[in-house]
Amino acid sequence: MKILVIGASGTLGRAVCAALEPRHTLLRAGRQGADLQVDLRDADRIEAMYEAIGPLDAVVVTAGKVHFGPLAQIDAAQWAIGLQDKLMGQVQLVQRGLARLRDGGSFTLTSGLLNDEPIRQGASAAMVNGALEGFVRAAALELPRGLRINLVSPTLLTESREAYAAFFPGTLTMDAAQVAQGYVRSVEGGDTGRVYRMGWSRER
Amino acid sequence: MKILVIGASGTLGRAVCAALEPRHTLLRAGRQGADLQVDLRDADRIEAMYEAIGPLDAVVVTAGKVHFGPLAQIDAAQWAIGLQDKLMGQVQLVQRGLARLRDGGSFTLTSGLLNDEPIRQGASAAMVNGALEGFVRAAALELPRGLRINLVSPTLLTESREAYAAFFPGTLTMDAAQVAQGYVRSVEGGDTGRVYRMGWSRER
Repeated sequence: MKILVIGASGTLGRAVCAALEPRHTLLRAGRQGADLQVDLRDADRIEAMYEAIGPLDAVVVTAGKVHFGPLAQIDAAQWAIGLQDKLMGQVQLVQRGLARLRDGGSFTLTSGLLNDEPIRQGASAAMVNGALEGFVRAAALELPRGLRINLVSPTLLTESREAYAAFFPGTLTMDAAQVAQGYVRSVEGGDTGRVYRMGWSRER
Repeated sequence: MKILVIGASGTLGRAVCAALEPRHTLLRAGRQGADLQVDLRDADRIEAMYEAIGPLDAVVVTAGKVHFGPLAQIDAAQWAIGLQDKLMGQVQLVQRGLARLRDGGSFTLTSGLLNDEPIRQGASAAMVNGALEGFVRAAALELPRGLRINLVSPTLLTESREAYAAFFPGTLTMDAAQVAQGYVRSVEGGDTGRVYRMGWSRER
């Protein structure tokens, strides 16, 4: 398959590329350091990127910015980071990509554990992750031509533990290479409308 | 208790007011037809409303606009309706209300079933409802002074069945008076960070 990976140079994106590369042709995109430059907040750039690439079999997104901070202090511009970048950026990739994917192609988006396992200072991330879950479940009902859409919700990556552990008390981590299997399942399997929670399981 | 009800003149809002009225002092707000006029998209108006009212024991929201339409056709302005009105309007009511609620006071927000039970043309509503779930779970961790926050997720109201049934195939309805009990539980009980799914139960 010909697969566009957005966020390809991040910790998770590199692991996803490594997992897909042996069997597929990858196009790597990102804010910087990738073959294709793209800003998730810029719908025109997204459109231009799709136009330049031509038909695809899958779009995988492992990118998306969101602001962390105390609930009482998050201001309008900080809420807007998560809403415009991680949320609507991924939604735009889907909407603009509808006509770009070949029959049976797939979108795989990324959320995160914080709507299931909230942390202090994580209200914006929890909001955006929950929004992506709702969006993916609903969008799956309206995709034409056998197109599919799934969401990967990774726990804290083992590779990111040192940098972020203080914000995630008692959170078991998972190696990026294991989390990457969620993306492999979405792209190569037959699921649609699914949320893959990549991390420790618990009672809900 | 002194309770502010926003959306008080809607079908659900009237039922919530009827359920709370015998035991509490209600202040009714809404876009129109209520004692206090408020536009959820206008943070300054929200602030002014709180200032005019003075200290409160509970804020209940049964209001919030969202756009319905085919996924491929929802444009930026239409996505923004749900994000700015139903989502960030309720978030603003919480953030600006933090300093207005007395110790132990509560916020009760409203989402809806569409992130759990998606329908065609419901992608924006599903997104906003999911976002509210994530937000409420995370915000509960950061509320000071024993403040609480919960979310009511109503199914299709029996009273609205005739108008909307075509969009909600096979959806069991619930009377607004029953759904209102979710708000009563949130306001008068001790829960925080909860999502009350008011409707038929199913395996998840």
